[in-house]
Amino acid sequence: MNPIDASQTQIDHALTSAVEAYSVYRHTAPSVRLKLLSTIAQLIEQSRAQLVAAAASESHLTETRLNNELNRTIFQLETYGAASQKGYCLEASLDHDPSAQPAKPDIRKILIALGPVVVFGSSNFPFAYSTAGGDTASALAAGCPVVVKAHPAHPETSALMAKCVTDAVAICGLPAGVFQHVFGASFEVGKWLVQHPYTAAVGFTGSFSGGKQLVDWAAARRNPIPVFAEMGSLNPVFLLPEKLNLSHTEIANQLVNSFTLGVGQFCTKPGFIIGIKDLAWDSFLNELSALTSSISPAPLLHNGIASSFEKNTELILQQPGIRVLARGSAPSKPGEGSPVIVQVNAADWLSNSLLQEENFGPFTMVIQCNDAIEILAVAKHLEGQLTGTIFATEQELMENRALVSMLEIRCGRLIFNGVPTGVEVCKSMQHGGPFPATSDARFGAVGEDAIRRFLRPIAYQNWPDALLPLPLQTKNPLAIPRFINGVLQPQ
Amino acid sequence: MNPIDASQTQIDHALTSAVEAYSVYRHTAPSVRLKLLSTIAQLIEQSRAQLVAAAASESHLTETRLNNELNRTIFQLETYGAASQKGYCLEASLDHDPSAQPAKPDIRKILIALGPVVVFGSSNFPFAYSTAGGDTASALAAGCPVVVKAHPAHPETSALMAKCVTDAVAICGLPAGVFQHVFGASFEVGKWLVQHPYTAAVGFTGSFSGGKQLVDWAAARRNPIPVFAEMGSLNPVFLLPEKLNLSHTEIANQLVNSFTLGVGQFCTKPGFIIGIKDLAWDSFLNELSALTSSISPAPLLHNGIASSFEKNTELILQQPGIRVLARGSAPSKPGEGSPVIVQVNAADWLSNSLLQEENFGPFTMVIQCNDAIEILAVAKHLEGQLTGTIFATEQELMENRALVSMLEIRCGRLIFNGVPTGVEVCKSMQHGGPFPATSDARFGAVGEDAIRRFLRPIAYQNWPDALLPLPLQTKNPLAIPRFINGVLQPQ
Repeated sequence: MNPIDASQTQIDHALTSAVEAYSVYRHTAPSVRLKLLSTIAQLIEQSRAQLVAAAASESHLTETRLNNELNRTIFQLETYGAASQKGYCLEASLDHDPSAQPAKPDIRKILIALGPVVVFGSSNFPFAYSTAGGDTASALAAGCPVVVKAHPAHPETSALMAKCVTDAVAICGLPAGVFQHVFGASFEVGKWLVQHPYTAAVGFTGSFSGGKQLVDWAAARRNPIPVFAEMGSLNPVFLLPEKLNLSHTEIANQLVNSFTLGVGQFCTKPGFIIGIKDLAWDSFLNELSALTSSISPAPLLHNGIASSFEKNTELILQQPGIRVLARGSAPSKPGEGSPVIVQVNAADWLSNSLLQEENFGPFTMVIQCNDAIEILAVAKHLEGQLTGTIFATEQELMENRALVSMLEIRCGRLIFNGVPTGVEVCKSMQHGGPFPATSDARFGAVGEDAIRRFLRPIAYQNWPDALLPLPLQTKNPLAIPRFINGVLQPQ
Repeated sequence: MNPIDASQTQIDHALTSAVEAYSVYRHTAPSVRLKLLSTIAQLIEQSRAQLVAAAASESHLTETRLNNELNRTIFQLETYGAASQKGYCLEASLDHDPSAQPAKPDIRKILIALGPVVVFGSSNFPFAYSTAGGDTASALAAGCPVVVKAHPAHPETSALMAKCVTDAVAICGLPAGVFQHVFGASFEVGKWLVQHPYTAAVGFTGSFSGGKQLVDWAAARRNPIPVFAEMGSLNPVFLLPEKLNLSHTEIANQLVNSFTLGVGQFCTKPGFIIGIKDLAWDSFLNELSALTSSISPAPLLHNGIASSFEKNTELILQQPGIRVLARGSAPSKPGEGSPVIVQVNAADWLSNSLLQEENFGPFTMVIQCNDAIEILAVAKHLEGQLTGTIFATEQELMENRALVSMLEIRCGRLIFNGVPTGVEVCKSMQHGGPFPATSDARFGAVGEDAIRRFLRPIAYQNWPDALLPLPLQTKNPLAIPRFINGVLQPQ
């Protein structure tokens, strides 16, 4: 399958259909959106075998992994639909006090859908962060029509997924413009989509260069629009000495599994392992090396990633002070990735900004510090990250508040004695972080709060009750939680 | 008083102090921020006479108006401080289910302060949207240090206000970097402030050209930052025939008062009055004209505004199809604004984009339509607005859903049978709208939800309870509302 790029006319047609669908879809009741998202989930479940087979062929990921990812995709659709129904995400608020002296206006506020959302799926999650993934699910839950550009690395998977969504839209009796799917491997298709006047927001998961390009195109529009670009992260892991002394074997196991999981192709892969040279550290490095050399090479998602991995690794190896700590010992075939760990002293790392760039694939970098002061210097030098991890005893964590404070400023999620891979889908998750990890740290891409990205407030002043949107009518016909004169009534 | 522009070194020093203060201030308990904001309010109250005198001299606004504006400023400081204490704005959320099979991580999320915020105050609200105005109050409530650039039109007022804030910071024992005040009439000072690496967000109230410049500077940074620019609005008012027939005299009175209030220098001034030509419409226009001609000229905020007002009015008068409907009949002195209403047919308005530009001052434009279809064409042609108003009977409102739907997409606040001036400070207010009214329609600048602009989420995974921020500890020591496993516990 080799789909042809959409033309500018086709993109214009898609956004025109989307903006027409918006005028209907944004008014739908939460129950309609729940039904749409549930129906998509059901159709995906019914197509499971076909979807997994297509994705396995296009992405080289294992069927086990893909089945798990499909479960996650279905769970996202169901929980975001349920969140739309629960109504917290509407943030309904009523201020009305007829007895106020002097008289005050009756003001009621709710969040409404932004408009058509363009979604660029990721290559490394062909289901959960692609065509019917988190961005699409949260935009549809918000009441926004979606135009997806299929990722060129898995066009067949994307087309199958898109069929589940378009079928669900039809089953629910909604306008076809609620969801549309276009192909485009070229630079131009992305630019037309982002710069189309009807596009109201953009969701993206991928590389820094790709995400930043979308951000720049959006900023150059006559009317700038928000872009939620999740662009990658180094996910530093700090190992404090007492904990390392107690658990170096277990930590080495956890970290090798984490940085090689999915052949190192996760945005939450631990890309830096930072600790202080001592006896336990040396044992830890030996264990890390032994485990890494025993990991077999595995096919990467596509040849572009394989050649970037090779090129980036070569470039890093040429940097001053870098040495190979371990490599997978088995020979690898073209298109495969074999694990690599390099080591560098903090001083060399601090003086070379190139070492802060993500190397997507089974690669990680050990940064060796002389003392706690160097640990802090490394933390201070970090750019924005999706996650930051500390392995420590509770006592050590308490004694290292300055380190925690630095990570709070630089990261979206802090993990204690665990690995950053594995992003739970729940309300409390934050998957997003300061630039350059994401383009807008004020929002996250995982969990029902992702819906908030595609909403904006509107207030109605002295509006006749019967003509207000249902969530704002005095009798609360949808029985949702609302703020009344500033106090939350949970229902 | 003729303050000297800050140098680049001084700006760097201010932002360095701010980022140092951030590491302390962002950790303060809500009670500390409430105390700071209340103390600022008290010191402002104590300096009332001096503040009003300075502002009257610098802005030419009346003492009555300035006293009311000071009340509003104090109310904002108090209510945003109280909102910080109530805790809704923290959006605390805990997902922990020790009995889950398979086991799930314990994840807890809260909103934290973004970092140092640069505030550019407005000329038309020397108190409420300037130095210690809404942006400063909401940033401080969020836990962000603030650097204010004094508006060059009221440096003395700004310096007096700044003293209230810096004194309050000292009284509360907080680092001086929590609030700083710099002068700068030049282009460069603004650019240095927005592009300084430690600046995390920007608040602005003013013209489109000024706001868009800040947005562009922020987007051109190596790490783009959010800019909340409230840039002006035309605030269309639609008059439906039956209502106009019933109440044309009252509506003419309301609209003339509204568009000349504060000498027309409000961002919510009704800039378009749109209706269908019929008998009541003709009576309404006669009343509008008579009332307008009786309004006396009054001094505008400063000479720059006075000359822009004159120039813009001239330019509009040269456009095809524009005619003067009424002017204030009393002669005006240099620096004063005398009211002007112009009239244009919908067809001429629709074909001339220049007629959608704001003319700041006592000016409004009547757009005469032939029928309801032209009314819709005008609505569809509107750019993003802070507000949209409909005068109608309830029956007419019900029959004009298409008009309402168009205004919902284009406006931040819809008003029924009222005027857009007068922006109530309450949780349900939305003061913000689609571009070009504001740079980010997902947030508002008035009411406690303005605090949300300066916050971002952070999640803690498997973190020791005692070392979590207080709002996330299991026992809920701050007794704030929190989501527990996705369900809100209001406390």
